[in-house]
Amino acid sequence: MDTELFALRYLPLDHDTAISYARRFLPSATAAELPGPGNVNQVFRVIDDAGQSVIVKQALPYLKIVGDSWPLTLGRARIEAEALKLANQCAPGLTPALIDYDPAMAVVVMEDLQGFEVWRSALMAQRDYPAVPAQVGEYCARMFVGTSDFGMPPSQRKLLSARFCNPELCGITEALVFTDPFQDAGSNNFGAELVGPVRKLWSDRELQRAACLIRYHFRTTSESLIHGDLHTGSILAGPAGGRIIDTEFSFVGPVAYDIGVVLGNLLISFLAHRAQHHDRFATRLWLAADQFWSSFTETLAALWPPQEPWQDRFLARTLQCAARYAGTKLIRRVVGLAHAPDIDEIVDDGERFKAQLDALAAGRALMLSNGVASLVQLWDIAIDAPAV
Amino acid sequence: MDTELFALRYLPLDHDTAISYARRFLPSATAAELPGPGNVNQVFRVIDDAGQSVIVKQALPYLKIVGDSWPLTLGRARIEAEALKLANQCAPGLTPALIDYDPAMAVVVMEDLQGFEVWRSALMAQRDYPAVPAQVGEYCARMFVGTSDFGMPPSQRKLLSARFCNPELCGITEALVFTDPFQDAGSNNFGAELVGPVRKLWSDRELQRAACLIRYHFRTTSESLIHGDLHTGSILAGPAGGRIIDTEFSFVGPVAYDIGVVLGNLLISFLAHRAQHHDRFATRLWLAADQFWSSFTETLAALWPPQEPWQDRFLARTLQCAARYAGTKLIRRVVGLAHAPDIDEIVDDGERFKAQLDALAAGRALMLSNGVASLVQLWDIAIDAPAV
Repeated sequence: MDTELFALRYLPLDHDTAISYARRFLPSATAAELPGPGNVNQVFRVIDDAGQSVIVKQALPYLKIVGDSWPLTLGRARIEAEALKLANQCAPGLTPALIDYDPAMAVVVMEDLQGFEVWRSALMAQRDYPAVPAQVGEYCARMFVGTSDFGMPPSQRKLLSARFCNPELCGITEALVFTDPFQDAGSNNFGAELVGPVRKLWSDRELQRAACLIRYHFRTTSESLIHGDLHTGSILAGPAGGRIIDTEFSFVGPVAYDIGVVLGNLLISFLAHRAQHHDRFATRLWLAADQFWSSFTETLAALWPPQEPWQDRFLARTLQCAARYAGTKLIRRVVGLAHAPDIDEIVDDGERFKAQLDALAAGRALMLSNGVASLVQLWDIAIDAPAV
Repeated sequence: MDTELFALRYLPLDHDTAISYARRFLPSATAAELPGPGNVNQVFRVIDDAGQSVIVKQALPYLKIVGDSWPLTLGRARIEAEALKLANQCAPGLTPALIDYDPAMAVVVMEDLQGFEVWRSALMAQRDYPAVPAQVGEYCARMFVGTSDFGMPPSQRKLLSARFCNPELCGITEALVFTDPFQDAGSNNFGAELVGPVRKLWSDRELQRAACLIRYHFRTTSESLIHGDLHTGSILAGPAGGRIIDTEFSFVGPVAYDIGVVLGNLLISFLAHRAQHHDRFATRLWLAADQFWSSFTETLAALWPPQEPWQDRFLARTLQCAARYAGTKLIRRVVGLAHAPDIDEIVDDGERFKAQLDALAAGRALMLSNGVASLVQLWDIAIDAPAV
């Protein structure tokens, strides 16, 4: 990694300075563009006239989606860079290459994966990349084994937990996924048409209890380095398969959270397409979930240490916890601060409203689920859930 | 805390240098004695002619019970001192006061609790200190609430986890409690008369699986600062009640481990006394366990945050995990490296053998237990367990 200092102190980049910054890595860089919206950081794609490009991603001293009223550590750039490096080792080829990390500027420079698009956008446009789900499952399994006590000495894994201590980014998840959507919090963000059903959720004692239990699991489980924000916007998709990006939420936590976030986001896409009568593509989303989970379990089976004869218990537990995590994601993406464009961008009001209600119902049913024994069962619980 | 440096580099203390070292805190110190055997560190009680005394405890660069073939971090003195300081804050009056911590010498100087004896010795001699069990339960509850996400902001608790990262001492527990006793490991330590039953345990697939699952729970649960070695030798007892010492195994782990270690050690004492036909004192040990658990649950109920409406679930889960942890302790204290004098010092061969077999049977039954719903049930499973 190049450690030459560009600046001795932090300066936020803009369009022009991003280009000059990137010249260290792309000497004839001439242009910069924003590759996507981004809730957390600012990201530039810097390009030269030959069509070569790099991604320059800078942490801002606040949470971008909220603004400077939510200050946020620049240290997340270190977490992102170190997690990317580890992912390159544990799951080679499934993430962009890390080109540079600059602590003073809180900048991570990484390979620009040309020919890929954000998986969420592809799913919204009903573009199918059949290799992606299995590669995401493989990524989760390889990261789990590589960074858990099964892939390194437990003493070293404990040091990894300390090194990836990421309290501020975990705090965002704790607030925006597990806490605020389940109470009348200022960060919530939903329209008048949803006031009735949302108030019902807020007065549902069993659901409140479930949210607390799931949050406690998230806070107190230290299994392996997880991505921490593995929604379909953190996955790039293309004919060559899937690539995982945006690792700044990484910490040593419950692997079921990553699994649940993937499944929850595939369910959001399913419910959005079902509401729009895209029945064929909706079926494709079930297949994607099945391919994802099968690939996770098969990769895991190949890597699981034989001296730990309880893989069946691990999978059962992980699937059950993932179901509950998926439930929280379904609810937070309708009630909470950061929404899913899969649903929000449905043009027809009635269809959009149906998708929102379905997501709330599915979220509640998954959060209260117990003894989920298979992915089919999980999916059925979600898509046939009783209305809130 | 006095930070004046005694030595700039580490020197192991002996009887004479311990006295001169202690003069900073006890100016007319004249004598030193060993207050107990100690498996991990060297400990001196330094005394002056007026009868005043302090405890000087030094970490050695190896595990004392094994010798210099098992090197061990001097950093455990820092962990012990910081844990003692936190315990003084969270559970005031239930630990000795911390007088000094000297990083260069890896020495912790603490209040000498005069008029107390090691609880294990008291139990072995059938001396009853009725206030002790409830105070130990109160200690566990206060430490849990004070150092979990219920007693401090979750972001701060995560930093606490990193600060108390204690891989080497956790590694001792993982090896000597959860791994070696369940296989033919060099560290094991049992007589020829036990070869048959121990080989049966080693070929019990369900038990192997249970041991792996329990070890995984120990390794991956980060709830609160636990003591990590809360056997009856880490508790002092006297007419004034109980005091907790020897906090060098502390880390942010599962509170059920501390609970299980207490219960497992009370069960060892129970089985030892039952084998010796001390029926009345054996009954007293059941009462002690009941007082301990009742005090834990009652203290917890008073401190539990109302916005977390799942205390019943927490208690059920903690008791079930504690039952399994207790099971591992019963087995390791018969099969593994460090034994329980409660059993080893039974004079009559037949009575000692019965206590050993009972401990193995109880250990196995508790490790395989499921759905334990009350302390009575836990106790019954242990004391009526089928022979191995």
